Amino acid sequence: MGLEIERKFLVQGLAWREIAEPGVAYAQGYLTREVGRSVRVRVAGDQGFLTIKSATIGISRQEYEYWIPVDEAWELLKNLCYQPLIEKTRYRIPQSPLVWEVDEFGGDNAGLVLAEVELSHSDQELILPDWIGQEVSQDHRYFNSYLNQHPYQQWES
Amino acid sequence: MGLEIERKFLVQGLAWREIAEPGVAYAQGYLTREVGRSVRVRVAGDQGFLTIKSATIGISRQEYEYWIPVDEAWELLKNLCYQPLIEKTRYRIPQSPLVWEVDEFGGDNAGLVLAEVELSHSDQELILPDWIGQEVSQDHRYFNSYLNQHPYQQWES
Repeated sequence: MGLEIERKFLVQGLAWREIAEPGVAYAQGYLTREVGRSVRVRVAGDQGFLTIKSATIGISRQEYEYWIPVDEAWELLKNLCYQPLIEKTRYRIPQSPLVWEVDEFGGDNAGLVLAEVELSHSDQELILPDWIGQEVSQDHRYFNSYLNQHPYQQWES
Repeated sequence: MGLEIERKFLVQGLAWREIAEPGVAYAQGYLTREVGRSVRVRVAGDQGFLTIKSATIGISRQEYEYWIPVDEAWELLKNLCYQPLIEKTRYRIPQSPLVWEVDEFGGDNAGLVLAEVELSHSDQELILPDWIGQEVSQDHRYFNSYLNQHPYQQWES
């Protein structure tokens, strides 16, 4: 079990692209829409994962992640997960001692760009780069499980 | 992915005990109660498993099973699965070329004894031992996921 402590922000501008490592294509879906836990199937590049998370309390939650064969991950995504799937490209931006992860969404969530950073404790100090915008850590609309049911392109502006 | 083809029966009498291998203690729970798929956590002896099954069509369904660390399986069972958990002792009874599995339930399902056999195709011939009773393959009340919500001891006789 890992305790995941994560802060999440909107991204502004394009400056982040110049310092990002090459992106990796992600596809992910959910096997449950119940409150209190999520069961996620993810393909990241050529790797498959099954991830169970508890409900979020503040900015932390329990997370259990298991590697699974990528062909089985695709079968689960296509045949057993709720549709549509979440598609995004993830870019890593190391900023010692942390690593920012920028997710540029595609498909029904195109136009949305989010940055996440994982912390080792919940009050860890964080230097925010210029391209970081509004914090949305506790805004449930930016949870991937919410986006799966309410794609960004359908949000009212 | 495996396609699971299984027939399930009530067990009558105690003759099966004499030919059974030593039993293994099982504890299992579910991370979802949604229709169309199940996500099961199981501890079998000292092994942990995460199993995803599709809806049952007739006597077959898709099954994906992954080994997970047993301490994490216990954490998932206790903290994230619906309660109460299913407790049972599973006994193997080889009967070439098949293997019967007899589940003797405990806890809230004490009194229930079921036998299952996995087939390689759905119309495979099956010789039924004397201790096999009524077939319940398609009776949803005997699904473990149903027993989790409606324990056997609460059934009206």
